[in-house]
Amino acid sequence: MNNNEQKHHADYVSFSTNADKKDTFDMMIMSYQALSADQDNWVCNLSNASSLIWHAYKSLNINVNWTGFYLANTPCTLLLGPFQGKVACQEIQFGKGVCGTAASAQQTQVVSDVNKFPGHIACDGETKSEIVVPIVSAEGKTLGVIDLDCLDFDAFNEIDKEYLEKLASEIVKSCRF
Amino acid sequence: MNNNEQKHHADYVSFSTNADKKDTFDMMIMSYQALSADQDNWVCNLSNASSLIWHAYKSLNINVNWTGFYLANTPCTLLLGPFQGKVACQEIQFGKGVCGTAASAQQTQVVSDVNKFPGHIACDGETKSEIVVPIVSAEGKTLGVIDLDCLDFDAFNEIDKEYLEKLASEIVKSCRF
Repeated sequence: MNNNEQKHHADYVSFSTNADKKDTFDMMIMSYQALSADQDNWVCNLSNASSLIWHAYKSLNINVNWTGFYLANTPCTLLLGPFQGKVACQEIQFGKGVCGTAASAQQTQVVSDVNKFPGHIACDGETKSEIVVPIVSAEGKTLGVIDLDCLDFDAFNEIDKEYLEKLASEIVKSCRF
Repeated sequence: MNNNEQKHHADYVSFSTNADKKDTFDMMIMSYQALSADQDNWVCNLSNASSLIWHAYKSLNINVNWTGFYLANTPCTLLLGPFQGKVACQEIQFGKGVCGTAASAQQTQVVSDVNKFPGHIACDGETKSEIVVPIVSAEGKTLGVIDLDCLDFDAFNEIDKEYLEKLASEIVKSCRF
């Protein structure tokens, strides 16, 4: 294989460091679509998605310390899925903490200070803010959540919510769970 | 939850930066055993394992750029599993490249210069050396491989092989595939 002629998979995370949030997130979504075009295995697709999210945020100088997934294992339990970052809690009950709340309410949780969130589950004591987006099937079943943690307070806003919800919908379309 | 009283999951990757290779790898194996003690879901366990490996190597100042897993999907295809690092190739045929060779030969491949390996599959053009360890069931079936890439030539040796093979055997014992 000639390295000079071919795009490597790793190049999908070469996000421009000069782009704004929307352009970067558009690129993240398009890259996910390209990577999952011929692939419906959820482990494979979410493993690459966790890396796309991580590198997109890092290119924007947003101090994410965890980007990944929890998947519904039983009707009321989330189990750790593919992620980038430090070792994390394996099991989270629906309704508990930020992830469990997003999963049971089927609503995105944007938390500017995790320590003020009732029942917050701290996998990492350094985390300051968090966004959790539910992944909901066409039939209305919670399949899992996208979870991002940041070392800074108030890291996530409506733009993050909009694009991560778009990603969740792409995941539902592309993956067999 | 009181952050001062409880060990967080993220603390499992707080490897000492003064420890030698064997001590660090012993800690990595023990941490994997602790994390998988009550958990047999392979996605969950390998997601945390990819992070343990990444942070163990980083604490040793070894420039790994990818640490993760490929899993046997059909009898002759490996599919991307949980990892830390940049987006990677999704599918690898048994017998192809370093991962495919480890999977079909059921033998660890230590490659000091990937560009000299016949049929090397470059997911990342920056990778210089690689180690791939097969994960083989008690019945002799290849379940997948542990794959580590490094930005430096000749990064892996017999110690890496020994401990990653130990980890592979812990994975076989702890996970339901």
